[in-house]
Amino acid sequence: HAAFDFNNHSHKRFNPLTHSWVLCSPHRTQRPWQGKREDGDELDKRPSYDPSCYLCPRNTRANGGMLNPDYHDTFVFQNDFPAVQQDQPSLIPSKDSNPLLQVESVRGECHVICFSPEHDKTLADMTELEIRPVIDAWIDTYNSLKQKPHINHIQIFENKGAAMGCSNPHPHGQVWSTEDIPQEPAQELVNMARYQKQHSRCMLCDYVKTEVDTDLKVKATTAATAATLAASAIDTGSVSAPSSPSSTSSLEYMNEPEPTHLSTATEPQLNGVKPRTTPDGSRVVCENVSFLCVVPFWATWPFETMVLSKHHLARLSDMNATQKEDLANILRRITCRYDNLFRCSFPYSMGIHQAPTNGDKDQEDLSHLHLHFYPPLLRSATVRKFLVGFELLGQAQRDLTPEQAATRLAECSEVHYRSA
Amino acid sequence: HAAFDFNNHSHKRFNPLTHSWVLCSPHRTQRPWQGKREDGDELDKRPSYDPSCYLCPRNTRANGGMLNPDYHDTFVFQNDFPAVQQDQPSLIPSKDSNPLLQVESVRGECHVICFSPEHDKTLADMTELEIRPVIDAWIDTYNSLKQKPHINHIQIFENKGAAMGCSNPHPHGQVWSTEDIPQEPAQELVNMARYQKQHSRCMLCDYVKTEVDTDLKVKATTAATAATLAASAIDTGSVSAPSSPSSTSSLEYMNEPEPTHLSTATEPQLNGVKPRTTPDGSRVVCENVSFLCVVPFWATWPFETMVLSKHHLARLSDMNATQKEDLANILRRITCRYDNLFRCSFPYSMGIHQAPTNGDKDQEDLSHLHLHFYPPLLRSATVRKFLVGFELLGQAQRDLTPEQAATRLAECSEVHYRSA
Ligand SMILES: O=P(O)(O)O[C@H]1O[C@H](CO)[C@@H](O)[C@H](O)[C@H]1O
Ligand SMILES: O=P(O)(O)O[C@H]1O[C@H](CO)[C@@H](O)[C@H](O)[C@H]1O
Repeated sequence: HAAFDFNNHSHKRFNPLTHSWVLCSPHRTQRPWQGKREDGDELDKRPSYDPSCYLCPRNTRANGGMLNPDYHDTFVFQNDFPAVQQDQPSLIPSKDSNPLLQVESVRGECHVICFSPEHDKTLADMTELEIRPVIDAWIDTYNSLKQKPHINHIQIFENKGAAMGCSNPHPHGQVWSTEDIPQEPAQELVNMARYQKQHSRCMLCDYVKTEVDTDLKVKATTAATAATLAASAIDTGSVSAPSSPSSTSSLEYMNEPEPTHLSTATEPQLNGVKPRTTPDGSRVVCENVSFLCVVPFWATWPFETMVLSKHHLARLSDMNATQKEDLANILRRITCRYDNLFRCSFPYSMGIHQAPTNGDKDQEDLSHLHLHFYPPLLRSATVRKFLVGFELLGQAQRDLTPEQAATRLAECSEVHYRSA
Repeated sequence: HAAFDFNNHSHKRFNPLTHSWVLCSPHRTQRPWQGKREDGDELDKRPSYDPSCYLCPRNTRANGGMLNPDYHDTFVFQNDFPAVQQDQPSLIPSKDSNPLLQVESVRGECHVICFSPEHDKTLADMTELEIRPVIDAWIDTYNSLKQKPHINHIQIFENKGAAMGCSNPHPHGQVWSTEDIPQEPAQELVNMARYQKQHSRCMLCDYVKTEVDTDLKVKATTAATAATLAASAIDTGSVSAPSSPSSTSSLEYMNEPEPTHLSTATEPQLNGVKPRTTPDGSRVVCENVSFLCVVPFWATWPFETMVLSKHHLARLSDMNATQKEDLANILRRITCRYDNLFRCSFPYSMGIHQAPTNGDKDQEDLSHLHLHFYPPLLRSATVRKFLVGFELLGQAQRDLTPEQAATRLAECSEVHYRSA
């Protein structure tokens, strides 16, 4: 009997934030592709000013009427085609109508934030000094919307690239603010509350520790660093060589009150080798003092990452000056690595999850600032992963493992290929 | 004060099958689009036999080794690049490891079902007689996989078109069978069980009744049919003209034990006109004696539809001969309407939800045979809806209302544009 190999055998992983499972089929990356190819990098074809772009400085906006100002870093305005609006009649849902026809009114506001006056820039080729005003614009927008009684949640996000439905290539993000907390962050709060109740700790504080220590554990298995780490009193357990199946290191249990290993009676013995119960390998892409960027254990998109505050901050506006600089730093580094991975302007949807603005103290305490990057590319600048068929009807599914994705991103340079 | 207008004001609708909400922003369809355009119809360019296609009869398969038989209707084989496989070592999850690193093994089988030997056919241009063997292949595959002790759920689906990640344009579907019930159908069963417990009725039986009666109610508001329907003793309530805001018809409450209207004390009075609490308009696209095709009240994709068995059947194999013919009929009609909508080969992911094969009697009783169609096109053959940004980070969002989508599909011909 061979041991279970996470790089070769199908398994599912649990996403504790959404409380759902993702199917991982790592042996499937070799299948042939006669399907759709994306256009690839269109960035080199873009001018730094496009007279027909409704987001460039001094141009006419999409609604035909207003002119954009001659802005120099960021520019925030109300979306001309908002998905939610502040001024609409109220709808009192009838509590006792057909349970299959439930509907509620949703009021809110939609803003657009231009990241740069230059039509051909992206976060990936902006400097940290240029990214700082974007962070300030996010904070200012959040702070001013938060005052409004009918705004209880503020969703900041960016769709980058045609493959991710971006309707205009000028570097920009959006802010959709609503009177209710949308499904995804609401679900995260429910699941973080459940974790907090069970473990008396913040889920994402624990996750940061897990990933940083897993990283140390893996490094410890290489001869070069083993001695150093042994000296710093880290128990590497029975881990011997990176390629051989190892028993679960006690470090992986560190967040449990009492690290309990399976008794050998229930643990299957495969030729005397204990099977691994979690994959080896780090999921850390890059980090600095304030932020950690990982491919989460439960990633769905091929090169999905999560940027987590190492400290338990509820929202962007709780950051001190150093943390703001560190966020600009980590944003530049991860978006640059993304572009370098396939040498193209790497498409993604990115969004910031932080405390709702409904005044609920419990929810504020639970909130742990983090960003999700959902990028669609799988094998190259032109072959993407489609979350369709089985994914929509059955369950989320990925091909390469999160550890393989993290390794490839960790190998990418932090100098942009177009400037190198 | 104007009344709430479901064609103009943002609202969210509850999906009882997934227990989640979708944001509907009907006023947003007019926004400009400078983003990605799909390639549109590639069907006319396709030959009926392609020597490089690994699904055409007599050709070499994707794995390079085997030859396809000279098949005449359908052809079923094991996927050469399966996402799940039967033969892999077992992984006993350690129950007490880090709760943030939960993983389980998933075994199963993946099959491909070619719908036709002709490379350029799709369900939309096959006759009902040609679709019948596809239904038989689904049933035969389900029945033979169901025998296997390690197969507890069988997910039949089709990805049609490059825009939906179809990796080969030859008409085909897939069957992914697993030892566990995937997320989506598992969630549906949980929610259907909750509904059954609360209402002592099947959720989807009730939904069929709701949609067919809503349809009758709407027809009743047109002068031509009002008299006929009045004669058949259907209470059209205070509905007067289709364009004026009407109070909720008592028919919409028919599934509640005692139809309770909101008292006028809590109901807001807008210039004496009561606001509508559910949108007017039918969601029925087409139907026959055995099946109903609707744009569900909670549809996420622009032209999403659901095909429901009118009888409470647990699975495809419970159909009698007439019901099989009726399924072929409704499949031809809805796929043909889809193609006619934008005069292109309309992309979608389609999947069949039916009883799991784990032997759980309660789950079999709960199951109600239905099919989901998730098509991405929004405005034309080349402009699709992207479920990105806010949709991934916040909440599912749609532009036109389900009623508007149903009206447009109901207006489409059932004679295919290429043969008309
Ligand atoms: O199996 P195929 O057709 O090669 O692949 C297609 O369908 C699968 C199942 O929905 C998806 O996982 C793939 O992303 C998609 O491209
Ligand atoms: O608002 P935009 O950029 O026009 O549109 C884009 O982002 C929105 C928010 O994620 C999506 O609803 C649209 O489908 C997408 O094309």
